[in-house]
Amino acid sequence: MNEQSLLDLLLSRDDYISGEELSKRLSISRTAVWKQINKLREQGYQFEAVSRRGYKLTYKPDRLHESLLLKALANVPLVKHVKLFGSIHSTQIEAQRLAEQGAPEGTLVIAEEQTAGKGRLGRKWHSPAGKGIWMSFVLRPLIALPYAPQLTLMMAVAVCRAIRSLTKLDVGIKWPNDLLINGRKISGILIESATEDERIRYCIVGIGIDANLDEEDYPEELRSVATSLKVESGQPIDRAELIGAVMKETESLYELYQQEGFAPIASLWEALSITLHQPVRIQAATDLIEGTAIGLHPSGALIVEDANGVRHTIFSADVQLSRC
Amino acid sequence: MNEQSLLDLLLSRDDYISGEELSKRLSISRTAVWKQINKLREQGYQFEAVSRRGYKLTYKPDRLHESLLLKALANVPLVKHVKLFGSIHSTQIEAQRLAEQGAPEGTLVIAEEQTAGKGRLGRKWHSPAGKGIWMSFVLRPLIALPYAPQLTLMMAVAVCRAIRSLTKLDVGIKWPNDLLINGRKISGILIESATEDERIRYCIVGIGIDANLDEEDYPEELRSVATSLKVESGQPIDRAELIGAVMKETESLYELYQQEGFAPIASLWEALSITLHQPVRIQAATDLIEGTAIGLHPSGALIVEDANGVRHTIFSADVQLSRC
Repeated sequence: MNEQSLLDLLLSRDDYISGEELSKRLSISRTAVWKQINKLREQGYQFEAVSRRGYKLTYKPDRLHESLLLKALANVPLVKHVKLFGSIHSTQIEAQRLAEQGAPEGTLVIAEEQTAGKGRLGRKWHSPAGKGIWMSFVLRPLIALPYAPQLTLMMAVAVCRAIRSLTKLDVGIKWPNDLLINGRKISGILIESATEDERIRYCIVGIGIDANLDEEDYPEELRSVATSLKVESGQPIDRAELIGAVMKETESLYELYQQEGFAPIASLWEALSITLHQPVRIQAATDLIEGTAIGLHPSGALIVEDANGVRHTIFSADVQLSRC
Repeated sequence: MNEQSLLDLLLSRDDYISGEELSKRLSISRTAVWKQINKLREQGYQFEAVSRRGYKLTYKPDRLHESLLLKALANVPLVKHVKLFGSIHSTQIEAQRLAEQGAPEGTLVIAEEQTAGKGRLGRKWHSPAGKGIWMSFVLRPLIALPYAPQLTLMMAVAVCRAIRSLTKLDVGIKWPNDLLINGRKISGILIESATEDERIRYCIVGIGIDANLDEEDYPEELRSVATSLKVESGQPIDRAELIGAVMKETESLYELYQQEGFAPIASLWEALSITLHQPVRIQAATDLIEGTAIGLHPSGALIVEDANGVRHTIFSADVQLSRC
């Protein structure tokens, strides 16, 4: 608790703050202040310490700090518990493990690094340390199974809006839930659900956002298809702040969805979509469908009209935008 | 392999069969025959052994024997692997564990007894040893998530038809997938699925059939709501044969479903339903709906018309038949 307040005080001040003031405001001894400063130094924070003037924070490591996370999530009641890991195999698997043990809706697992990050279709998700947002959380929606794909679209809207609120970047949604900037992927969302007959037991929402990766952080094969917020905007983003924004958007949309159903979510999705009204090629389970994406089915499926005017309802597929 | 053949030979003959003949037909020594007979004795089989005449099977224990199971499943290519357990916590959890490890479609887990059998909504399923069919198998259907409830109805039809083919009992389906005789439950089906966005990774189909339970096998609180094939028909059923029939029906319907879609399954379901055209009370997530079940929605949901003529589409709920 004191550690959080010490960091808060230092962060709130551009100038020096004296050991005496820190000691008074935190109601702890000067020795305790000094110990906490050292603890922060061990975590990568850097200070100038000048006698008679005090301490000044000169470098804040790009590291998710629990106190900063909790601050960023303070106004998001949806988030009940936060578990922060330095390195983990997969936040998705950890969140699933917690859900099976009964973890409540809003349990959030965040990692600095994933050693076996999960993407869609069994693919790996490149998750280098300290550079991105790799997180998974538990939802327990009281909706019937056929509506589950709507949550996938809802999450795409939430992440897209959060990124747009903190950057000026023109992020769009490729159906169902990839986020692209200039045709390159900036974020992936994966929702895994455990169901019992028509009932959803829980969903694990996995979100990967390439926040502060540099060009050289990408393996060769990803450079043409992936990009990061830092690469696109030219400056790093505060990851804790972005996590807070994503979860706040999620909470708002989830409330909206529970109160008003899917229609308002669909409108928001359509406004951010780069798939609608575009020619698309869709490799479905058995067919290759070429046509124009003309809208969302109320279930969340994509409606594609082919050259013969036949409309296809696509629930799940790999969609290629033909212009790409 | 020899053991299977020995049992087959003994089962195929109502009369005595000599040790010499057994030895010849199995191409093993007389001593080996004698050892195998003893092994079967240990498993509960009983024989009359008369000098010069040979062996006669006089008692076949009510015990699932791997060789009999494999014989009953010989004409069901859908079933790729069978794992038979004496006692297990839950066939459902074991099948799920295997599916996560990559077990193929058609992996079947059967147990004589479950110590923590799973029912719907976290309920327990009473699964005493040697009396019922407690089994779970893996499906990996290439269908989109919104269609998953159709599998629930398909399985109700499969089990209902299998029971009807081996007994004269008037079994009917209560939406979505409870099987009732005279208003009492004879079987429960639970489908748990693991999904990734709109894609089904796998389904675990759990089937419990109260085959040979006697009245006294039921705890007090179940006696008015549950019954067994044996209680209803007055005679025990061959459990291996019933397992074979259930899996054969499942295979046929699954093929039909994959080729022709849900429509023919829906017709079969409707023909066996005791819910349709009946007054029903439905406790949905938020509402209590009273009306008449008038049909199946193409998705597999139940359509209920209330007193005002308003139609409700019910995906998941506890349905009470008002007449019960």
